Amino acid sequence: MGFAIGVDLGGTNLRIAAVDENGTLLEKVTTGTQVKRGRDAVIDEMIKAITVLSAKYQNGSKLLGVGIGVPGIIDKRTGMLRESPNLPGWDDYPVRDVLEKRLSSAVYLENDANAAALGENWLGAAKDMDDMCMITLGTGVGGGIVLRGRIWHGMTGMAGELGHITIDPNGPKCGCGNRGCVETYASATAVMRMAREMIAAGEAPELARISTSDEEFNARAIFNLAIQGDPAAKAIYNKVGWALGILLADLVNAFNLHMHVIGGGVSGAWEAFAPAMFHEVFTRCMVYAATAPDEIRGPALGASADLRPLPSGKKTIITRALLGSDAGLFGAARLPMIGVEINEKGHVPVF
Amino acid sequence: MGFAIGVDLGGTNLRIAAVDENGTLLEKVTTGTQVKRGRDAVIDEMIKAITVLSAKYQNGSKLLGVGIGVPGIIDKRTGMLRESPNLPGWDDYPVRDVLEKRLSSAVYLENDANAAALGENWLGAAKDMDDMCMITLGTGVGGGIVLRGRIWHGMTGMAGELGHITIDPNGPKCGCGNRGCVETYASATAVMRMAREMIAAGEAPELARISTSDEEFNARAIFNLAIQGDPAAKAIYNKVGWALGILLADLVNAFNLHMHVIGGGVSGAWEAFAPAMFHEVFTRCMVYAATAPDEIRGPALGASADLRPLPSGKKTIITRALLGSDAGLFGAARLPMIGVEINEKGHVPVF
Repeated sequence: MGFAIGVDLGGTNLRIAAVDENGTLLEKVTTGTQVKRGRDAVIDEMIKAITVLSAKYQNGSKLLGVGIGVPGIIDKRTGMLRESPNLPGWDDYPVRDVLEKRLSSAVYLENDANAAALGENWLGAAKDMDDMCMITLGTGVGGGIVLRGRIWHGMTGMAGELGHITIDPNGPKCGCGNRGCVETYASATAVMRMAREMIAAGEAPELARISTSDEEFNARAIFNLAIQGDPAAKAIYNKVGWALGILLADLVNAFNLHMHVIGGGVSGAWEAFAPAMFHEVFTRCMVYAATAPDEIRGPALGASADLRPLPSGKKTIITRALLGSDAGLFGAARLPMIGVEINEKGHVPVF
Repeated sequence: MGFAIGVDLGGTNLRIAAVDENGTLLEKVTTGTQVKRGRDAVIDEMIKAITVLSAKYQNGSKLLGVGIGVPGIIDKRTGMLRESPNLPGWDDYPVRDVLEKRLSSAVYLENDANAAALGENWLGAAKDMDDMCMITLGTGVGGGIVLRGRIWHGMTGMAGELGHITIDPNGPKCGCGNRGCVETYASATAVMRMAREMIAAGEAPELARISTSDEEFNARAIFNLAIQGDPAAKAIYNKVGWALGILLADLVNAFNLHMHVIGGGVSGAWEAFAPAMFHEVFTRCMVYAATAPDEIRGPALGASADLRPLPSGKKTIITRALLGSDAGLFGAARLPMIGVEINEKGHVPVF
């Protein structure tokens, strides 16, 4: 059986795993190299770790290649990063070609949110689903679309930027240049911004208290307050759910996919944002209303009595991710197994 | 060479065409049957016309099947309409099975906007493009997505409802149940609603004048006023362009497709809405800003000087449809040629 190396090149550290074709994790390494030490140090460390890992498992097993998940927009044809705010100095550097040369192995570069989607599709919440998408709620909001078991890249590898779908055209300014993107409502950064705004407006006494106490003041602390019933914290996560529900309504109307997976750190606050999210997607999306699981089609969510069940019996599933922070690592390792290279027409042959 | 019959079952009348595999129109018939005469009359008339046409061209040429474009949501597995406000009495009627039995021919049922997208992809503005989407601006706003030359149906055939993507979550109520859908800003119905609102508010003296004159008062008349510089008419079409630009920004971020075609009656007002549309998509969508054609990347549209050209040279094209009202007819005829049936897993085999 073959195996592959998956690399998760995050904004802070570098994680590397050897995974076999069955999806069994052979070994996982988190290097001490801080990504902020710069490109060349990271590349050297990555090559060292990959070389050690692949030598270790190459006894009778074939290395199928190396997949790397990277935060940022990638041009699939050139194997270069186009926009990667968290990786200064990597723009327009031929990462793929440099690594292929030094490793003498096929290297597949992928956006980290796309890699996470592929990981959840291969081994996680969307296992055995042909078509799915994943929304990753972290510092920002990433997205990945998997059609027929392969990442949908679009024309130049930039598809799946679901975090920049517009929710409110007059909403908060986003780093991407737009206003009111999903990311301005449903990222950890957005949760903290909303908390600070409510504190400044004198609307959040409990949030104000913990923000100046010794307790850690982050999205998780606000989630804990929301679960305990604090009105300000609840309002923040209702806003997260509101934005995600509108995004999901858009996605279901456009793609009519079977499976929608929500992952990333902020997805840990599922209990706090999911009710508002399901309410929005149910009331805004006719396709979802017609295909939602029965338990969501109840009167509590405003289902009209004459909503007929879909004859084919297929349901639109919206659920939490299962693989946690390993989704991107498994997805990266999956890349060499399915081969996502671009052919001469600029297309992934069979995505 | 084979040929196929395409049917456009509109809200008013019934159009039927025989088209060969090269895309040559052999003959086009518009029947006098008014669709409002009811389902059984329409079915009988359709069968009569199809039988006559197919007999006429079956000399040495093979009938590949019949494709029918229908306004409404279709369950591809059962071949039934699920929601079709313009075709009362057709809901849950087994159209496909009835026609297949009576015609002894393969019958392919398709949403009319999907059929139009396939038509423009086969013979129109998106000819020879593997991946594209089309937005049809009519009484409502329809959409169709074509990936790898085939309509993307999603799980149950309901994909491509691009007219119901949310533009402003607090916007006008839409017939679908949502608020602020594209359809509430960019359909002929929306243009007339905005005109009436502005007249009622005393903001549109010229519109008020023609609305009570002998002149026809419709979306085209408002377009004519906009082109002549009337501020109220211009504001209405700027709103149309604003909504379409936000929709396109969402689509480009999600799919990263090469080609976006805008058709339907209201697309005739292109000169009035396109500037606002391009402005919105350019300023809101980082993927578009990175891949827009050079003439759109100029300073007039707020391009920052350091926007680097995409190395691969691919552009994101947004353009007008070319086939007019025949797009759906050609697309319907195309269906039997490419075979879009659902296999036992519920999927179109190779979309």
